[in-house]
Amino acid sequence: MRFAIAQSGGPTSAINASLAGVHLELLAMENQFAETTPIEVLGVRNGIQGLIEERFVSLNQALQTPEDIEILKRTPSTALGSCRFRLPDAETDDSLYRNIQNILEKNHIHTFFYIGGNDSMDTVAKLSKWLSAQHSTVQVIGIPKTIDNDLVCMDHTPGFGSAAKYVAMTIQEIIRDSSVYNVPSVAICEIMGRDAGWLTASSCVLRANGEDAPHLIYLPESDFSVAKFLDDVREQLAKRHTVICAVSEGVTPPDADAFRSGANDEFGHAYLSGIGKLLETQVRTQIGVKVRSMELNVMQRCSSHLASASDLQEAEMVGRHAVSLALNGSTGRVVTMQRASNTPYRVEYSDADAISVANITRKFPTEWITENGNQISDAALDYFLPLIQGEVQPIMRNGMPTHFRFAN
Amino acid sequence: MRFAIAQSGGPTSAINASLAGVHLELLAMENQFAETTPIEVLGVRNGIQGLIEERFVSLNQALQTPEDIEILKRTPSTALGSCRFRLPDAETDDSLYRNIQNILEKNHIHTFFYIGGNDSMDTVAKLSKWLSAQHSTVQVIGIPKTIDNDLVCMDHTPGFGSAAKYVAMTIQEIIRDSSVYNVPSVAICEIMGRDAGWLTASSCVLRANGEDAPHLIYLPESDFSVAKFLDDVREQLAKRHTVICAVSEGVTPPDADAFRSGANDEFGHAYLSGIGKLLETQVRTQIGVKVRSMELNVMQRCSSHLASASDLQEAEMVGRHAVSLALNGSTGRVVTMQRASNTPYRVEYSDADAISVANITRKFPTEWITENGNQISDAALDYFLPLIQGEVQPIMRNGMPTHFRFAN
Repeated sequence: MRFAIAQSGGPTSAINASLAGVHLELLAMENQFAETTPIEVLGVRNGIQGLIEERFVSLNQALQTPEDIEILKRTPSTALGSCRFRLPDAETDDSLYRNIQNILEKNHIHTFFYIGGNDSMDTVAKLSKWLSAQHSTVQVIGIPKTIDNDLVCMDHTPGFGSAAKYVAMTIQEIIRDSSVYNVPSVAICEIMGRDAGWLTASSCVLRANGEDAPHLIYLPESDFSVAKFLDDVREQLAKRHTVICAVSEGVTPPDADAFRSGANDEFGHAYLSGIGKLLETQVRTQIGVKVRSMELNVMQRCSSHLASASDLQEAEMVGRHAVSLALNGSTGRVVTMQRASNTPYRVEYSDADAISVANITRKFPTEWITENGNQISDAALDYFLPLIQGEVQPIMRNGMPTHFRFAN
Repeated sequence: MRFAIAQSGGPTSAINASLAGVHLELLAMENQFAETTPIEVLGVRNGIQGLIEERFVSLNQALQTPEDIEILKRTPSTALGSCRFRLPDAETDDSLYRNIQNILEKNHIHTFFYIGGNDSMDTVAKLSKWLSAQHSTVQVIGIPKTIDNDLVCMDHTPGFGSAAKYVAMTIQEIIRDSSVYNVPSVAICEIMGRDAGWLTASSCVLRANGEDAPHLIYLPESDFSVAKFLDDVREQLAKRHTVICAVSEGVTPPDADAFRSGANDEFGHAYLSGIGKLLETQVRTQIGVKVRSMELNVMQRCSSHLASASDLQEAEMVGRHAVSLALNGSTGRVVTMQRASNTPYRVEYSDADAISVANITRKFPTEWITENGNQISDAALDYFLPLIQGEVQPIMRNGMPTHFRFAN
């Protein structure tokens, strides 16, 4: 039996753990039935694009030792490569679908596993629908991942917990760094999340360790304006000399243009660089205190050296669960996680129709945003904390982590 | 006997380990002679400024348990706070010196320890010179720290190894993140170091783990221009789809203005945002491939969760050595480290005149820059590697590190 697996969308620290999970579960199956059904697992390079181009790598050959697997799990980003490619509608153009079907069938693929976010689940939904309509036996199963935590039908997404742990630990260190001078100052951390503020909101977990920062937290779901932000900062500066703000990159202040047009040249520049720079310039020009903005940038999605153990274990488990769905004959399904219990924390694995996950963004609940729109409630703290628990030590060599790399 | 200690200049991950080193060595002394000479250690808030304002905290009271000390060592930035304050010349204005002398003497301070960079060593030199000239018995000892590794009279500086480990590990993760798409792309990492390129150069250590990136490394000491950079990138893009560049923030291309004046509005903005953004915009407009620039920002100096064990141990040892200098009656001296052996790696602690360390920047050796000016030689690799060895696990609580904080 042959299986194929590909990765798509933006990198996370946990996406390779899901790849390892699929592989390990398939290997376990092979060990059970080795004599009758040898299992071959094909890794597909660069997502659905690599499938179309038939760029395969044998996972059986590439992952020979338990150490290979452990290093793979701890390697950030997509070891197989990724793509940003959406399938067209089959109704308007079915040639690509015929081509993919042909490739899958001639390679005797039992199931094509696709790890990705809501764009990738669109691919799972479309491709499985096409294959079923053609009475093809090839199955397609989606495995969720995204640092944005914005997929519906599940409690949270693999990859999010590690990103949240990075954000919390990094902001904690930035708090120490920003608070050293005895002068009024503002630090602004710009965090990923164009459409949903989960990752920015998760910075509230620092409260559990007695940190009062971030003092201000703004999400795309918040009622936000530059004028209100400046008022909030002034109010905080009256109470403390260092004010730490966490701002989602997706925050779009309705009055940005007003501030922009009335502002000096420097502000115009800042505006183009993102919300962090925009707010930094406003604090500097309107309030006149020391201010620095920092983008946590790609580091928040690829810093696997401080991955959450909880996240990595779950990422592996969703991969394993995908295999059981495949063996049950499912297609067009996405693995999901539900929180069965918070204390003690326990999740259950299930599945949902890919079409109900595809292209939909799960917003951060507005009832977890405080009334004044600049903080996150304690209820959210209970939600976030279990997701960042535990550490996974990198396998070090020469003082640096070892990463898994497929030969080209 | 009373001692005072303060921290100054920019934060590092190791500066609190030096504070702990002084305190532990003084405690050890107290344990030896407890009945005759109780030892009191005063922490001074916000450097020399806090000394002038007599803002002290008792380290004996604040650091009660071995766990307190271990947490302090692992806490980034300056736990006592910092300042950016240079003493005026005593010849032009001696009132401040009289004031400081008065404060030190009335508080019966045996030695004032000052942890900092070359600005702070200027303070050590000036203050010790004044006190000696006044026949004061108060001694002043400097303890080096800087992530820039640019102090003279020593092999390397405490704080540098941890920053270098952060830079290496972060760029390694950025390599994984940047290489996922099968399209030509450029990633530019802007690294701290206004005057010297040590930290940027240290990214070459990735070679020891088989990484071919960073493919291009530029320091303030490099022969650099925007035109040459674009040629270098084009040459690299002919060989590989992802090109990773490490660029020191202190790189100042002589032709920047030419590119600026001839460029569109967008470039003007970028120019103001630093060298990374400038080069990003040039790659986008002149070469036309996917490009992203990333500032490693303050994270490179405060990410103590991945501090180098070698660095933290040495930072503690320079603190301990400072105490032995104080007890030998030294003043106006700075602790130094020399590399006694590279294989096995071993350092020896010694001292130098503060005046020879003050205000001088040690540049990265040009003989370690390759002939074409865009790479670092293997000789530098041997220099850097021992400095990033070993890990120091944070003491975790709720999935996040515990940090030491003095009560206000």
